[in-house]
Amino acid sequence: MKKRTVVNLKSEELPRSWYNIKADLPFKMDPPLNPATNEVINPEDMMAIFPKSIVEQEMSEERFIPIPEPVLDEYAVFRPSPLIRATFLEEYLNTPARIYYKYEGNSPTGSHKTNTAIAQAYYNKTDGITELTTETGAGQWGSALSYAGRKFGLTVRVFMVRNSFQSKPMRQHMMRMFDGTVEPSPGENTESGRNFLKDRKNFSGSLGMAISEAIEIVLNSKTKKYSLGSVLDHVLLHQTVIGLEVEKQLEMLGEKPSSIIGCHGGGSNFGGTILPFVKRTFNGDDIEFIACEPESCPSLSKGEYRYDSGDSAGFTPLLKMYTLGREFVPPAIHAGGLRYHGAAPLISRLVKEGIVTPIAFPQEETFRAGLLFATTEGIIPAPESCHAIAGAVRKAIEARETGEEKVIVFTLSGNGALDLSSFTSTLEAHRDVLNFDKLRESSIVEQ
Amino acid sequence: MKKRTVVNLKSEELPRSWYNIKADLPFKMDPPLNPATNEVINPEDMMAIFPKSIVEQEMSEERFIPIPEPVLDEYAVFRPSPLIRATFLEEYLNTPARIYYKYEGNSPTGSHKTNTAIAQAYYNKTDGITELTTETGAGQWGSALSYAGRKFGLTVRVFMVRNSFQSKPMRQHMMRMFDGTVEPSPGENTESGRNFLKDRKNFSGSLGMAISEAIEIVLNSKTKKYSLGSVLDHVLLHQTVIGLEVEKQLEMLGEKPSSIIGCHGGGSNFGGTILPFVKRTFNGDDIEFIACEPESCPSLSKGEYRYDSGDSAGFTPLLKMYTLGREFVPPAIHAGGLRYHGAAPLISRLVKEGIVTPIAFPQEETFRAGLLFATTEGIIPAPESCHAIAGAVRKAIEARETGEEKVIVFTLSGNGALDLSSFTSTLEAHRDVLNFDKLRESSIVEQ
Repeated sequence: MKKRTVVNLKSEELPRSWYNIKADLPFKMDPPLNPATNEVINPEDMMAIFPKSIVEQEMSEERFIPIPEPVLDEYAVFRPSPLIRATFLEEYLNTPARIYYKYEGNSPTGSHKTNTAIAQAYYNKTDGITELTTETGAGQWGSALSYAGRKFGLTVRVFMVRNSFQSKPMRQHMMRMFDGTVEPSPGENTESGRNFLKDRKNFSGSLGMAISEAIEIVLNSKTKKYSLGSVLDHVLLHQTVIGLEVEKQLEMLGEKPSSIIGCHGGGSNFGGTILPFVKRTFNGDDIEFIACEPESCPSLSKGEYRYDSGDSAGFTPLLKMYTLGREFVPPAIHAGGLRYHGAAPLISRLVKEGIVTPIAFPQEETFRAGLLFATTEGIIPAPESCHAIAGAVRKAIEARETGEEKVIVFTLSGNGALDLSSFTSTLEAHRDVLNFDKLRESSIVEQ
Repeated sequence: MKKRTVVNLKSEELPRSWYNIKADLPFKMDPPLNPATNEVINPEDMMAIFPKSIVEQEMSEERFIPIPEPVLDEYAVFRPSPLIRATFLEEYLNTPARIYYKYEGNSPTGSHKTNTAIAQAYYNKTDGITELTTETGAGQWGSALSYAGRKFGLTVRVFMVRNSFQSKPMRQHMMRMFDGTVEPSPGENTESGRNFLKDRKNFSGSLGMAISEAIEIVLNSKTKKYSLGSVLDHVLLHQTVIGLEVEKQLEMLGEKPSSIIGCHGGGSNFGGTILPFVKRTFNGDDIEFIACEPESCPSLSKGEYRYDSGDSAGFTPLLKMYTLGREFVPPAIHAGGLRYHGAAPLISRLVKEGIVTPIAFPQEETFRAGLLFATTEGIIPAPESCHAIAGAVRKAIEARETGEEKVIVFTLSGNGALDLSSFTSTLEAHRDVLNFDKLRESSIVEQ
């Protein structure tokens, strides 16, 4: 019979610290600027939005930051997460490559987002905050923060990009299940929202607009703060628990990765996966890092590298990053979590330095890869995660052509059970894709 | 930090045979009868509906039936499944009991149903069948069979109970994703369906009616057969892979179960879990087996033990079972998979013999237990599975009161991601339940 290799770490092997790559970078990051003055921002300015301990963490250059015990306790509910060899996908693709995926979709709300949600809720709680506001695209982040808020007794208010609000009612149910409140963005409840709505009614929205609405509510409040699900250094820091686990798991297998792949929206799951490995390349290791983004929102591939605001209204610090412009409104694609005009400054700089390679994928290729994955590996992936699968499939086919025994590692950031209608609406437009035998022709996967 | 105990078996520890309890029963089962003649049914009669190899298996008295290699290969995609100690739930309930759950929700379609779907698709394929028809309640079975059909190249046509068809569009998406077709039952496409519809328009339907429609299509066809997701001996047989794994996992822990608990609709996940343990009680072991069913469809608790038809129109063999009557139409509750008028003959007999104890739960108690489980253990359970949790919670509270270190084992048959709206509609009617602190009062859990 066939065998499936699953590498499970024990509870006691859960990393006790997050890894802060800023301690190891051979270059200095460009600092965030105050949007009012264009000067380097100071911690006090950031505290208008974030609690003190998060601001300190954002600015820290310590190599390892201990994970607080209450956060470890909450991680223990669903971590460590498994690293799985994609035996059935490999066989299907007839590739000499060994493909491994880190699966984050078994978390309480179905994605990697809980890793930082729990940490952020904890720090806000200890800083005396009682309410968190946030934005969400596909709803993964909003549900993760609702769950974390419930765990630590915080009220959570979520501005959900209107496009997803309408197409993903189940995600709203999940937020409400964990006592979060959710409203469509742009909406009538904030000044920013009303301004965005002026031009067009029922505007499909964007992450940048939803961020503006969520920040407007908390500006200068002592008890309400804003929580961001990606982009910033502290968010990527919390997500390094993913990559640190992968390091241990690959070591247990005696494998050295050739390519590490992730989907890229704001950069949190991608950064969390690659950062612990990036430092190895400073020491001469040859690892390829591939950021998979949608062709319709290609921040890293087509954006400009410059200072820009993280939100549409211009409330956030200015960040040096690849950006399509804060006014950019991406089309209403299914991978709502990847519809962001900018990118994490850390990832942007790694792209600029030639360490990370971005690839933009057409939506259909990602759904084909996702369907192939569901049928071979038995997990229905989130539309965002389908981008990482598409990247891995391309690399595996490349390895077949060159005959090289590459070791391909990617993070499957989330489960797609709540995104099934995205699959079927795509598939119904392309019935041939449903033909499993046809799917065997790699040309269809590669398109 | 807190620890989570997860017992993972290796691929090579996957059971190689299913366990057939009929070889060990100290009594003889009452045989199925031909509905036309009321005589004991012969294999040829059953072949009007099922393929030859399934009929042989249904009638087999061999103790162990080898799992065919292609079925093992497909099992390897998602099995063995984990046994998890519910550490966080235990702590919350402040119970001296140790609670373990066998989690079947990581299967490709989110429930235990794939265990038999794959086996049935395989046997039909080897017997030359090209199309399968079936019924589905909540959609778990229909999606599992669609997935299995796709794996073995069979067409799958699903009659979905109209009540669930309307309330669970995501389940339809999943069936279509795996190339199944799905239609509401009762519907206009069969004579049975048209008859059921005569009385009332948009009748909410029942599993019994959907079975009639699915069988009508295949009667006397050489290439189309019917596939049943529960009730019959061969279905329970395939599901024993669950209990056989649990046996190994408990042995690894050195634990002896005091109570084994499962939700009960037709009896497949419950039977699959308990049957390997039932034989121990014939040898004097003291294990309590608890079947958790909904108060609104209490087949085992309130039904009569007699011969009855498995479907509403009377196509199936007559089975000796607990039944509410084949005409019984349960109210439109959320746990669609438990809305069945009858029960597996094997489980029915074990109830009759006093070996299995049925308990009927009010819907709210099950959702409260499910929400508690989601918040403590980080898995959103299917509404059906919430019944098993409710059963385990009652036993754990009982153990707290008596101070006994009981070992409570239950099967969490499925993931509830696609059933979120059921949770929120219940919770919105009872906002207090969303208060996590209030949930701490056991009185609310116990109601």
